[in-house]
Amino acid sequence: MNFRQKLDNTIKKNNSLLCIGLDPDLDRIPKNFLQTSDPIFEFNKSIIDQTHDLVCTYKPNIAFYEAYGIDGLKSLKLTMEYLRKKYPEIPIILDAKRGDIPNTAEKYAKSVFEYWNADAVTIFPNLGLDSILPFLKYKDKLTILLIKTSNPDSKMFQDISFDKEPYFIKMAKIISKWKYANLGIFVGATFPEELKRIRNIFPETLFLSAGLGAQDANIERSVKTGINNSKSGIMFNAGRSIIYSNDPRNEAIKTKKQINKYR
Amino acid sequence: MNFRQKLDNTIKKNNSLLCIGLDPDLDRIPKNFLQTSDPIFEFNKSIIDQTHDLVCTYKPNIAFYEAYGIDGLKSLKLTMEYLRKKYPEIPIILDAKRGDIPNTAEKYAKSVFEYWNADAVTIFPNLGLDSILPFLKYKDKLTILLIKTSNPDSKMFQDISFDKEPYFIKMAKIISKWKYANLGIFVGATFPEELKRIRNIFPETLFLSAGLGAQDANIERSVKTGINNSKSGIMFNAGRSIIYSNDPRNEAIKTKKQINKYR
Repeated sequence: MNFRQKLDNTIKKNNSLLCIGLDPDLDRIPKNFLQTSDPIFEFNKSIIDQTHDLVCTYKPNIAFYEAYGIDGLKSLKLTMEYLRKKYPEIPIILDAKRGDIPNTAEKYAKSVFEYWNADAVTIFPNLGLDSILPFLKYKDKLTILLIKTSNPDSKMFQDISFDKEPYFIKMAKIISKWKYANLGIFVGATFPEELKRIRNIFPETLFLSAGLGAQDANIERSVKTGINNSKSGIMFNAGRSIIYSNDPRNEAIKTKKQINKYR
Repeated sequence: MNFRQKLDNTIKKNNSLLCIGLDPDLDRIPKNFLQTSDPIFEFNKSIIDQTHDLVCTYKPNIAFYEAYGIDGLKSLKLTMEYLRKKYPEIPIILDAKRGDIPNTAEKYAKSVFEYWNADAVTIFPNLGLDSILPFLKYKDKLTILLIKTSNPDSKMFQDISFDKEPYFIKMAKIISKWKYANLGIFVGATFPEELKRIRNIFPETLFLSAGLGAQDANIERSVKTGINNSKSGIMFNAGRSIIYSNDPRNEAIKTKKQINKYR
């Protein structure tokens, strides 16, 4: 089963486009977890057990684990294995934002898809197609290209314009000519106009978007501009606003419903 | 001591602009290392011991370790610690090509500079200044921005032109207005014309360049266009051509001399 099929099954089963970002921070997780032998894993496990029937995918961002070095990565490994074993139907996106020359990209692809056994990965497309092919070789996996990020300064370079066409649109148009079924696109939900322009370029491609919640994206506009003609085809990530709320399950229900309201 | 001082001392001591890429691949390292308990570390140790008086810096690319998961990263940790202990005067660049929104970039910066204890890192500048500041906060460390990479397809997106000026030049001009002493610039040595244009924009900034050796960059042109007015200010990485040669020390001597010939 490839990523798209796995995802579509889970979207249907849970009636959800919600992706939860598993981005643990020891300074922010509830104190009771700090007394366990693996606070990061136990925290993730608790979030997963509370929300597994509300999501279409989980997205650990590897930076939050790398910050704690090899110990943090061990907690990520346990988290991936736990998800695989207990909720095998839920696809996992490893948000790793990798990118390198072909010879090196092969190593990153091997790490993400073989060692971490992720179903999908985020990468920088900026090095061009030869740097992306080592990821695309894994046909059942989804390789998500970062086109327009959600942070305020993303306009600095991504929006450099000529003839009213910003860099991220030029980039999107080139990518839209490639014929790979296992390519996805990342666009920050904090920029709904940009999301709309990119959706017009890729009417049916699978999108990942982030910025609902802590980054305050407008849910109505993001959903209306981000969905495809089948009112699907996009995963909306929310991280901090759910995992650090007093009641993660309740917050996930609310976010899931808000997204569905505008589909 | 900051990165620049440390590097300048080693450049003088070893009379070298050579950076050696520590990019171990179990399929390529000599068979005798495979019988040791940690082939990657033992291979690195052997390369380091043979070349420590010929380089200005070492550059492990983390992808080659991540490909082997946590075990690979343990070998990287041992390599970093070995360098620190035995050759503390040699600065280490962790080639990690990271980049993420500010909240997450903080975690990557913490990982690279605190956990891995690297002296310098490579990152994607494409998310804009807010995503770079968490790295720049580490004032004694060097944060190297990828402006123009060495692979053939780098032209696909990096050379998109706006008003006859390619994206990487527009990007370089914006960055050149920033006032941070701990910023470095990466330009592939496979594109000497582009290296020259970027050197003109940053006359004194520290550069890292790659592509000598396995990627066949022209050493004469790269050196002549890449050095600053003091005939220095650039580190030339060579990886595979040295570490997998039959005689790494001899190959490193040759490469170092070729670079110096054109300074």
